[in-house]
Amino acid sequence: MSFTDSLLSRHRGLWARLVEHPFVLRTRDGDMPPEIFNTWLRQDYLFVREGRSFLGLLLARSPERLRDPLADALAALGEELDLFRDRAAALGVDLEDVRPGLVNHAFVQYLKATAHGASYGSAFTAYWTAEKAYHECWKVVEPGLPADSPRRPLVENWAGDEFAGFVGWLGSELDALAEQASAAEREAMEGHFERTARYELAFWEMALEGPGWPGLEG
Amino acid sequence: MSFTDSLLSRHRGLWARLVEHPFVLRTRDGDMPPEIFNTWLRQDYLFVREGRSFLGLLLARSPERLRDPLADALAALGEELDLFRDRAAALGVDLEDVRPGLVNHAFVQYLKATAHGASYGSAFTAYWTAEKAYHECWKVVEPGLPADSPRRPLVENWAGDEFAGFVGWLGSELDALAEQASAAEREAMEGHFERTARYELAFWEMALEGPGWPGLEG
Amino acid sequence: MSFTDSLLSRHRGLWARLVEHPFVLRTRDGDMPPEIFNTWLRQDYLFVREGRSFLGLLLARSPERLRDPLADALAALGEELDLFRDRAAALGVDLEDVRPGLVNHAFVQYLKATAHGASYGSAFTAYWTAEKAYHECWKVVEPGLPADSPRRPLVENWAGDEFAGFVGWLGSELDALAEQASAAEREAMEGHFERTARYELAFWEMALEGPGWPGLEG
Amino acid sequence: MSFTDSLLSRHRGLWARLVEHPFVLRTRDGDMPPEIFNTWLRQDYLFVREGRSFLGLLLARSPERLRDPLADALAALGEELDLFRDRAAALGVDLEDVRPGLVNHAFVQYLKATAHGASYGSAFTAYWTAEKAYHECWKVVEPGLPADSPRRPLVENWAGDEFAGFVGWLGSELDALAEQASAAEREAMEGHFERTARYELAFWEMALEGPGWPGLEG
Repeated sequence: MSFTDSLLSRHRGLWARLVEHPFVLRTRDGDMPPEIFNTWLRQDYLFVREGRSFLGLLLARSPERLRDPLADALAALGEELDLFRDRAAALGVDLEDVRPGLVNHAFVQYLKATAHGASYGSAFTAYWTAEKAYHECWKVVEPGLPADSPRRPLVENWAGDEFAGFVGWLGSELDALAEQASAAEREAMEGHFERTARYELAFWEMALEGPGWPGLEG
Repeated sequence: MSFTDSLLSRHRGLWARLVEHPFVLRTRDGDMPPEIFNTWLRQDYLFVREGRSFLGLLLARSPERLRDPLADALAALGEELDLFRDRAAALGVDLEDVRPGLVNHAFVQYLKATAHGASYGSAFTAYWTAEKAYHECWKVVEPGLPADSPRRPLVENWAGDEFAGFVGWLGSELDALAEQASAAEREAMEGHFERTARYELAFWEMALEGPGWPGLEG
Repeated sequence: MSFTDSLLSRHRGLWARLVEHPFVLRTRDGDMPPEIFNTWLRQDYLFVREGRSFLGLLLARSPERLRDPLADALAALGEELDLFRDRAAALGVDLEDVRPGLVNHAFVQYLKATAHGASYGSAFTAYWTAEKAYHECWKVVEPGLPADSPRRPLVENWAGDEFAGFVGWLGSELDALAEQASAAEREAMEGHFERTARYELAFWEMALEGPGWPGLEG
Repeated sequence: MSFTDSLLSRHRGLWARLVEHPFVLRTRDGDMPPEIFNTWLRQDYLFVREGRSFLGLLLARSPERLRDPLADALAALGEELDLFRDRAAALGVDLEDVRPGLVNHAFVQYLKATAHGASYGSAFTAYWTAEKAYHECWKVVEPGLPADSPRRPLVENWAGDEFAGFVGWLGSELDALAEQASAAEREAMEGHFERTARYELAFWEMALEGPGWPGLEG
């Protein structure tokens, strides 16, 4: 079994909570109030903006062979941000002055700290996990969306074939890294899979519960 | 008004929530069940262990003048960890296999990411804020503790004169940094004051609520 | 006077050594033996490959406003590497198994360490200085080159209008950063201007003298 | 054969150039003019000051088990700097306003960039290599020094038993790291052994030749 398959298999309970999260299922079923969806939209816009730093740091530590595709991925995030702004306009959502909820802020900090200080394989694992989670969650949502839903272009961005191909490529690179890695390194990488999935799950929870900070209103 | 005083004054509402948090007041009043106190103890032990990285990173970017005192502070954290282990033994608390709650994990990631990627003044602000918060909170607790409380040595570690002197020194260094800083830099530093205080507040909340991850039991 | 102009003015002696270096003037005058030019080509190819890391790190610390153009600059370096390979093929130069000379290795380390640990303004200064130096040096070379020189496409890459526009943009961003900066920060930035120019100068020297390591043959 | 032994064995030619460098042998034989020795002293003082950053960065990425000894090593560097100042006073050497030669500057940048961006095993290899080189070189010098040489306390600092024990401990930790590492990681570590030894060798050359920058006088 490939490394990525073994991660998904060994943590299938955690992964199922993520992919079948109420935020996902209710959005698929047309049962997601605009306020909640738009809260997610605003927070995720911020996440992508700040998360771009992660990719710059990862590229900086990457072998030469990966630098062109990672530079492309960085440019693609710029287009993703354009798509966010376009959809926000269509949905009447204001993207100015968004403040990150604790989970949003924390997830970005985790990614940055990992890209800086953890092993390269650990950082790459976090990257694949986050993109894989997005692809799989939005693939669940996609079939339930009306053809003319203004949410559709955003959902298709992550559910579609191009992103699927990208996530598959990331997975094959991760498998190649894992094959070269020592047992201790693979264990560290698995820890980052689990933590990244936990942060993704917490992000869905935050979308439902609201982007507050513990002990503070608002 | 000094920079540090202005931070405390401009964010006095946030600061008051921290220093007068139920965890603080109930511990002072002898109204803190061992399970909750010990949850905090276990989580904070982990926080100090992992947080030591922050100080190594800060030292790496510090002017020569500060490297001796920061090397001493690193060594002092080693002694603090001994004190944790000593108190855990006295209180019958197991420090093995502690897993960080989301807020604990996130706070450490925030500190590391800040020490890596934010301005030096921002990182120094985060450091002072965290130590200042600890000093002030435990100074609130200290008068209420019985003389023979097994919690006392830990509380005195942060409430006592030596730590007070250290926090005062950090504050004066921060004021000197702020005096040299541009307006834009001071604004960035203030942002890190606020975020650090928010993480500290969330840490107290986590101690009361339990160190879980959103969307997962346990 | 703008910050960038004041840097060039205050260090005009150092800058003149760079722009009027024998490697530059002799290449302009058609007096540069292929072995030396090709040594430079091989070393510089390696430098651009490794130096791409610097740009990823800089992007990671950049304000949102600059992330799109820096992502474009990262992609442009990929095209620059293609140009190197194309020109190497035309000139019969082997780009495999190049080992960096000390100065080449050191310059990359300096850029990475600066992007990691120095202030953002310092890292941005190093970036502008390196690109400005390249633009100005190759602008000196360009008028002397035969129209059909196989070196021409590479020289035009840095001497041409597009790169001129990019360097001008970097300079205006640096001037804006300097305007916001404190006096202490501007002094640090100036130090990085000087060091980057010194490394550039050492790189020309290495091209002429050969890419060895002190105390070792070859 | 242990990993560290295999490094020394596979690169014995490079290592011999380092340990039997003219700077080493002539200092042992009492044939080292004060100007040259003192040039080295001034440059090395700066190197240790700036190099302390490396150790802070390494500690930040270290497993918990190593953080106490590395914090002690950081404090020990503070004492080493005191020893430099003490010896400089005894030898009439001014330590103010020393500017680093290119090799000195470059070596520090290499160490910082490695501690930031290379694998942990690579950074640890660089650390052991630098300390091992110092121990072995100064052990060669020590027997030739007059008992009352004012250089003796500095030489004994690195040639003596305490430092020998420390270097031995670093080596055993590195061997343990290598045992856990994959083949690819061990190859990366070996590359850092070689590069660190090359920088050490270049440092001796710089002491003899003077701490200039290529293309500049002085």
